[in-house]
Amino acid sequence: MKLEHPDRLMNRSPLSLAALEVHDAFAERHIGPDAADQRTMLDALGFESRAALIDAVIPRAIRRTDALPLGPFAEPRSEAEALALLRQLADKNEVFRSYIGQGYYNTHTPAVILRNVLENPAWYTAYTPYQPEISQGRLEALLNFQQMIGDLTGLEIANASLLDEATAAAEAMTLLQRAGKAKSNVFYVADDVLPQTIEVVRTRAEPIGIEVRVGPAQEAAGANAFGVLLQYPGAFGDVRDYRALTEAVHAAGGHVVVAADLLALTVLTPPGEWGADVAVGTSQRFGVPVGFGGPHAAYMAVRDAFKRQMPGRLVGVTVDAQGKSALRLALQTREQHIRREKATSNVCTAQALLAIMASMYAVYHGPQGLRTIAQRVHRIAQLLATGVQQLGYTLVNETFFDTLTIETGTRTAAVHDAAKRMRINLRRVSDTRVGVSVDETTKRADLNDLLCVFATAAGAIDVPHVDVLDTALTRAEAEGRSGESGGAAAVPAALVRTSAYLTHHVFNRHHSETEMLRYLRSLADKDLALDRSMIPLGSCTMKLNATSEMLPVTWPEFAQIHPFAPADQTVGYREMIDQLEHMLVAATGYAAVSLQPNAGSQGEYAGLLIIHAYHASRGEGHRDVCLIPASAHGTNPASAHMAGMKVVVVGCDEQGNVDIEDLKAKAAEHSANLAAIMITYPSTHGVFEQNVREICEIVHAHGGQVYVDGANMNAMVGLTAPGQFGGDVSHLNLHKTFCIPHGGGGPGVGPVAVGAHLAQFLPNQTSSGYRRAENGIGAVSAAPYGSASILPISWMYIAMMGAKNLTAATEVAILNANYVAKRLAPHYPVLYSGPGGLVAHECILDLRPIKDASGITVDDVAKRLADYGFHAPTMSFPVPGTLMVEPTESESKEELDRFVEAMIAIREEIRAVEEGRADREDNPLKHAPHTAAVVTANEWPHAYTREAAAYPLPSLVTRKYWPPVGRADNAYGDRNLFCSCVPVADYA
Amino acid sequence: MKLEHPDRLMNRSPLSLAALEVHDAFAERHIGPDAADQRTMLDALGFESRAALIDAVIPRAIRRTDALPLGPFAEPRSEAEALALLRQLADKNEVFRSYIGQGYYNTHTPAVILRNVLENPAWYTAYTPYQPEISQGRLEALLNFQQMIGDLTGLEIANASLLDEATAAAEAMTLLQRAGKAKSNVFYVADDVLPQTIEVVRTRAEPIGIEVRVGPAQEAAGANAFGVLLQYPGAFGDVRDYRALTEAVHAAGGHVVVAADLLALTVLTPPGEWGADVAVGTSQRFGVPVGFGGPHAAYMAVRDAFKRQMPGRLVGVTVDAQGKSALRLALQTREQHIRREKATSNVCTAQALLAIMASMYAVYHGPQGLRTIAQRVHRIAQLLATGVQQLGYTLVNETFFDTLTIETGTRTAAVHDAAKRMRINLRRVSDTRVGVSVDETTKRADLNDLLCVFATAAGAIDVPHVDVLDTALTRAEAEGRSGESGGAAAVPAALVRTSAYLTHHVFNRHHSETEMLRYLRSLADKDLALDRSMIPLGSCTMKLNATSEMLPVTWPEFAQIHPFAPADQTVGYREMIDQLEHMLVAATGYAAVSLQPNAGSQGEYAGLLIIHAYHASRGEGHRDVCLIPASAHGTNPASAHMAGMKVVVVGCDEQGNVDIEDLKAKAAEHSANLAAIMITYPSTHGVFEQNVREICEIVHAHGGQVYVDGANMNAMVGLTAPGQFGGDVSHLNLHKTFCIPHGGGGPGVGPVAVGAHLAQFLPNQTSSGYRRAENGIGAVSAAPYGSASILPISWMYIAMMGAKNLTAATEVAILNANYVAKRLAPHYPVLYSGPGGLVAHECILDLRPIKDASGITVDDVAKRLADYGFHAPTMSFPVPGTLMVEPTESESKEELDRFVEAMIAIREEIRAVEEGRADREDNPLKHAPHTAAVVTANEWPHAYTREAAAYPLPSLVTRKYWPPVGRADNAYGDRNLFCSCVPVADYA
Repeated sequence: MKLEHPDRLMNRSPLSLAALEVHDAFAERHIGPDAADQRTMLDALGFESRAALIDAVIPRAIRRTDALPLGPFAEPRSEAEALALLRQLADKNEVFRSYIGQGYYNTHTPAVILRNVLENPAWYTAYTPYQPEISQGRLEALLNFQQMIGDLTGLEIANASLLDEATAAAEAMTLLQRAGKAKSNVFYVADDVLPQTIEVVRTRAEPIGIEVRVGPAQEAAGANAFGVLLQYPGAFGDVRDYRALTEAVHAAGGHVVVAADLLALTVLTPPGEWGADVAVGTSQRFGVPVGFGGPHAAYMAVRDAFKRQMPGRLVGVTVDAQGKSALRLALQTREQHIRREKATSNVCTAQALLAIMASMYAVYHGPQGLRTIAQRVHRIAQLLATGVQQLGYTLVNETFFDTLTIETGTRTAAVHDAAKRMRINLRRVSDTRVGVSVDETTKRADLNDLLCVFATAAGAIDVPHVDVLDTALTRAEAEGRSGESGGAAAVPAALVRTSAYLTHHVFNRHHSETEMLRYLRSLADKDLALDRSMIPLGSCTMKLNATSEMLPVTWPEFAQIHPFAPADQTVGYREMIDQLEHMLVAATGYAAVSLQPNAGSQGEYAGLLIIHAYHASRGEGHRDVCLIPASAHGTNPASAHMAGMKVVVVGCDEQGNVDIEDLKAKAAEHSANLAAIMITYPSTHGVFEQNVREICEIVHAHGGQVYVDGANMNAMVGLTAPGQFGGDVSHLNLHKTFCIPHGGGGPGVGPVAVGAHLAQFLPNQTSSGYRRAENGIGAVSAAPYGSASILPISWMYIAMMGAKNLTAATEVAILNANYVAKRLAPHYPVLYSGPGGLVAHECILDLRPIKDASGITVDDVAKRLADYGFHAPTMSFPVPGTLMVEPTESESKEELDRFVEAMIAIREEIRAVEEGRADREDNPLKHAPHTAAVVTANEWPHAYTREAAAYPLPSLVTRKYWPPVGRADNAYGDRNLFCSCVPVADYA
Repeated sequence: MKLEHPDRLMNRSPLSLAALEVHDAFAERHIGPDAADQRTMLDALGFESRAALIDAVIPRAIRRTDALPLGPFAEPRSEAEALALLRQLADKNEVFRSYIGQGYYNTHTPAVILRNVLENPAWYTAYTPYQPEISQGRLEALLNFQQMIGDLTGLEIANASLLDEATAAAEAMTLLQRAGKAKSNVFYVADDVLPQTIEVVRTRAEPIGIEVRVGPAQEAAGANAFGVLLQYPGAFGDVRDYRALTEAVHAAGGHVVVAADLLALTVLTPPGEWGADVAVGTSQRFGVPVGFGGPHAAYMAVRDAFKRQMPGRLVGVTVDAQGKSALRLALQTREQHIRREKATSNVCTAQALLAIMASMYAVYHGPQGLRTIAQRVHRIAQLLATGVQQLGYTLVNETFFDTLTIETGTRTAAVHDAAKRMRINLRRVSDTRVGVSVDETTKRADLNDLLCVFATAAGAIDVPHVDVLDTALTRAEAEGRSGESGGAAAVPAALVRTSAYLTHHVFNRHHSETEMLRYLRSLADKDLALDRSMIPLGSCTMKLNATSEMLPVTWPEFAQIHPFAPADQTVGYREMIDQLEHMLVAATGYAAVSLQPNAGSQGEYAGLLIIHAYHASRGEGHRDVCLIPASAHGTNPASAHMAGMKVVVVGCDEQGNVDIEDLKAKAAEHSANLAAIMITYPSTHGVFEQNVREICEIVHAHGGQVYVDGANMNAMVGLTAPGQFGGDVSHLNLHKTFCIPHGGGGPGVGPVAVGAHLAQFLPNQTSSGYRRAENGIGAVSAAPYGSASILPISWMYIAMMGAKNLTAATEVAILNANYVAKRLAPHYPVLYSGPGGLVAHECILDLRPIKDASGITVDDVAKRLADYGFHAPTMSFPVPGTLMVEPTESESKEELDRFVEAMIAIREEIRAVEEGRADREDNPLKHAPHTAAVVTANEWPHAYTREAAAYPLPSLVTRKYWPPVGRADNAYGDRNLFCSCVPVADYA
């Protein structure tokens, strides 16, 4: 508590306007401890100033000497000023009505979901639900997503989302490769798969030796492929019956992946029913704004046989310590500890927030609501088809759901001109063909406008009237003449869906807004997110996601832009992105940045492809050895493997630093083939290695490139820069250092930053005309700018902080970590500190001696923290048996103290076990977390008291979080895998 | 649970586009029970159809036969369509930079408060905190408001907000009248009080015989007034020292009210320190958008001696059953049961949501932050003053805080023209004077623009440069020459604030956004609002406040419009308001509506003034008797008294209906002086009285007018209309029937609707040029359109529902009430049903026999409901010892059943007491509600089990709300009145 000193008198100390302008207003909101608290903390650490602390922590040799060169963004701006500036950029975008389709559709985000999920910090500030007991709300929402996907695709099991449709298709390819008997290295892709998907699949196939063949779908069976990718409906709108084809592929020993449209699946026979093995796609059109390409949740569903090969997260049902149903991430060994050099997937982020939105869209509309939307969309497409044919155009696709390809011949330019005058975008299929995809937002008036466009281009005097078309078509259908009057039968009879879906009660009871609102609230209330308490996760940087950063995300000028809209409509977006790239260049010390990768794993993968492309361009394409320290995060070897590299592990010393001698030896041994080293800086052990420059020099000397993992960038911004101390490539995590919220497990953004010599290899996307780099590696994401709609978050953060305060934030992050380490060190040994016993921006608490003495594990401590109202730190990474704590700069001293006091109190509980005052099994740690139902039960069988269980600190009385379930039994759930919604009876 | 039937096949049942358009999409979101549930409920009630039920409930004689004549709004619109339509209206408003001031200032709403209070249903859907145990969060926020007001004004005690500054001033006038010895009937108002305040004070003074004299402040002491109203700073900007004047007024036996600006009070000596007795004002500029005039929270603070006379709500500290601190509304007998015919205030709504926002603005900025804002605002005013004087203008006010009155002489028009070209509004003080009020949003660039405006009008070549002005002024001040170089001393030395304020820790620790966010969340989590469960309050109509209705409120085109902006900037607002008036005319059957009254009480009061004006216009101004049934709500007699009428009570029969014979007798007895009758329809007993037409006819026959209280309009819309069955005037509660959220106790909107013969008497506001009615009663609110910025909520509701669905909503409200009554009748007798045992839209449960048999009171049941997760029904109104339940149409059958099952379970708990199976004192009812701390305590001294206390129904295990405090002791708190923030130690 800080009391105000008696006020300074207004007139006795003259203050100029200049002195009264509070330029650091936002920084004071973002950075938790104020000046007085920082002073107290520095005193505790024995430093005179923050600068002195930083000098002691960061090796002088790598300190950046320049101020962050942010150019026009060097000075901080207030929240209002930054918003006004961004508003100017937003206003340079033009929001046309887009019928481009191609995997991105306009949609109505139900307002209750918009406000209470996308705009609600209880949802968007949550972390990935690795701690099930404090994540039951979002786990339920994601389970609903899985159920929805399973139902709609007709396949047995679905995961909890992937990054985008294109990468999901690539993941399906590698899944089939590793699942199958690999009699062939051919992956056959139908030529009406979405072009951006084909690009990403090609990018992913090449380094691992898969041959992608693109051709007509009907020739797939003869391709002797291990896998076939089909689009359903196809990119040009066709709805084809692939049952026989699928049987033929199976007969030839291959498997079939189908990229399917979820809305269409409410009325079309699902792929699972006609034999497909895997389905992938996007859930964007289920209420998630197009947002210039992302973020949206992709899905993957598979036959039961493939479930253990499925990448990404999977929510499953298990039981808790009391035997009640509890949800948690299933088969985590599949994913969390990525199988290093054996990996064929490096996915460790999902699109949780967007998957939750899509699942809630289905919960809110229910099966009948979704079907009505689909029927209406289809009807509009039918009427448009009839109308354009009356106007003399030819329909290319005889069958369709929502997309028409229209032969426009010499009138093509006239069609686009007429459309532009009406602020309408159509798909430019070719010089003689135009595509139109309608969606749930297409109104009768819009249909009329579309008909006007085609009438104008045709020089027709009369525009077909919607009502007349509708009446005629209805009559024709009633009389069984639906093929007449221009109206196509549209959907083959065999492909009309007859099976039920979304029959679970969760999709059938929240249809009033009141019920929906309460359902959302009840789920949010089960979870711990940043809006309730600190999430001290090492390496995850759970800092403030400021409201002013979030506001622009839902501005229509950002949210309602199609990723393939003409460039003259996206001027503001591209200026903003260009500015953000420059900001990140300044922060990293590199020369160029690509924002296309939509997760850290994708940025990392792209970085390695860039390194490979660089070597190849110099005639050294054979360089394929990637050195990785033993302490690396599992994604590093996984990405290296995916990029076609061989992983060679470099040892670490006792302090967690790279063993220089071993590095020298390995580098020399593999000198001829050395492609790269992947290091994390500061290290995964939370230390600024003193010799990082030397490491870089050794690798460079042997012709290798240096990949610096940017996961810990939060400890570097303004103080040091990987592009300055020897790195050639880094990925960043905008959802860590640059304030994009974690969203309960995604979205993330993982830009790749490179030195000047690598800029020519940055990602492109040929199909959309996004050619950024001369010799680019191709596309790594479905959209040219990845998750474009959330980039304003990072832009706002940097614009509001300015150079000085970004640096200050880094310094306070280091101060906070050292303060926590200092206070906890007497109770838990701190591993891996640098000179002077200091850590970087996080600290590792060693619980191994505790386990030896008491039997209390990191798991017990993590679960017990939930009783104290805290999310657990990172468990057993990078060192088994430890907890890694990263407080970030946003946590106030008060909150740090609250956390420290909880940890100390837990230490005392452990001590009671160690000293025999408490039972080794029957103690509050082993039985943590304690639900309210357990503590209020009539029976209390424990050796410790109820109050000790629930209120171990008095401060909890006014601020108590109750975990909704007891400790989840992971082994039981994995043995009895169940990944669909829980039967209602289980709740009773 | 509803399972979907096997799907209809898409192509086998042709559906036209017309058939697929879901016009009732919003209605299906707004109305809780779907068709199947309605069918089940109708079966339970024994009716074939909803129509048959309605025929049985509503007397045929008063049924409206026409469809609601909504004109262009007759057909329902989807949420997207209605938003698009409203967006067109919003775009007709022009958002200029306004420096008009006059009580309304631009402000930055901190984004974290915007999103997490104003846009968060946990705050805006809450009810008035009459049930303290489930309202601790908003009570704490309101207590912070009181503390903030007390600190800033320097007075001992403040209430939890009033409606607006003008009505607060009028309330202060009547407070002093009833508090003083009333040696005089003169209320003296300084001529630099805000003009809209003077208007409202005049309106309120006239009917109760107070003479308002307006004149120079310095002549106040000689006016022999019982009260004096001063403005501080004055309307023209002056900062005057009123200490001597106040002493003189006191010496003459009068009291002083000061309307004071909160931001100025951070740097000026507060009125309490120079002797004022009462302070009033607005808290708008503390982060609440101007919104074309409202809603904003006004405040009132008084010396301790006046605390029991203070109108409005007062939050106080007391203890709960466990002796811990608990907040609750203090001295409720002052307010809740308004003292009928003795009343001089009818206020029963506050502006809770806005007061909470303003208090959070202070919590977030803290004392130093507020002071810096004030200093900066003042500095900008100083620089502007210096600059315009350099340009040759004369400053009218020598002293100022933020407002300048500038003598512009013949250049006045040129000044306004130059301003308009730069999209700037200045105050039009007179033909030769211009006013400028700057505020926290005024940037350096804005100051430059202002100087440009004055330079342009002066024909000056050079515009004074801000930096040059700033430097010169700073130097002059440092050298003690602050009177030179055109810079006024600005604030008299005696008025420089020296006292500290906001020293309580709550204002000194939530300055980072993370801390603020968590504070807001922690408070919200303590409360029950509509986002968690049904609030079954009789007469309060807690229906859905749909998100799509709320979205437009914060659109800048609505939020950022000054109430006195020129008419050509407010075209969209006025069109929207005009349309809403027509909608309400259609709903009520009257001829005209005024939206000026900003609470139901104000609409009711305005209605009575209109009746008086009508009689006076016919030479019958002597008519002053107002008949009021015994069952009336307390505001009715209070309003009548305030309108200068004498109340004569009419008896009711055993069914709660007006006793016709008594009415006839009283009407005849007072025939010559009969002014009006005030009835509620359906009655406060929840019954459609059969003979309401006859009642109206009797009163009309004796020359009286019929006032129909619109509190129960939710039972009438579309089915019957007060304007059609005999009413002459009604007020409506847009926050009941028309979906404006209750905001935890305000804002409300209380339009007054009148027959054609009364339209000429509707409210005006002369000072702003808003003259709606030829012979209007004057102003009843500070702003011409009252709480304009929330009117889009009701507009959206009506536009989305259309005629048919508004009627359907009424029918389902009646269905829901009858379903609840039917299910509960076997357990609790239902009082006052109509023919066939049916009720209207609410039902009264009689608990008096229960009390006699068991000692269990309505209070016990109400508190016990909190343990079951429900807000209590209305207690002991209109009949002591009963509970009144109004479910509204928005509650689903599932939620109704949940409530019914809770009530039945409680009945069984009572039965245990009745039958001696449970102790009469030690039972879960008497000890309700149970906090988690109580149920988990090591000691459990009760005769019933812990599980019985906390989880009396199994369904609570998955959805448990924990009241944060035990039963609050009202008597203790009133005896030991304490209405400031709780000392920190109390929390420990």
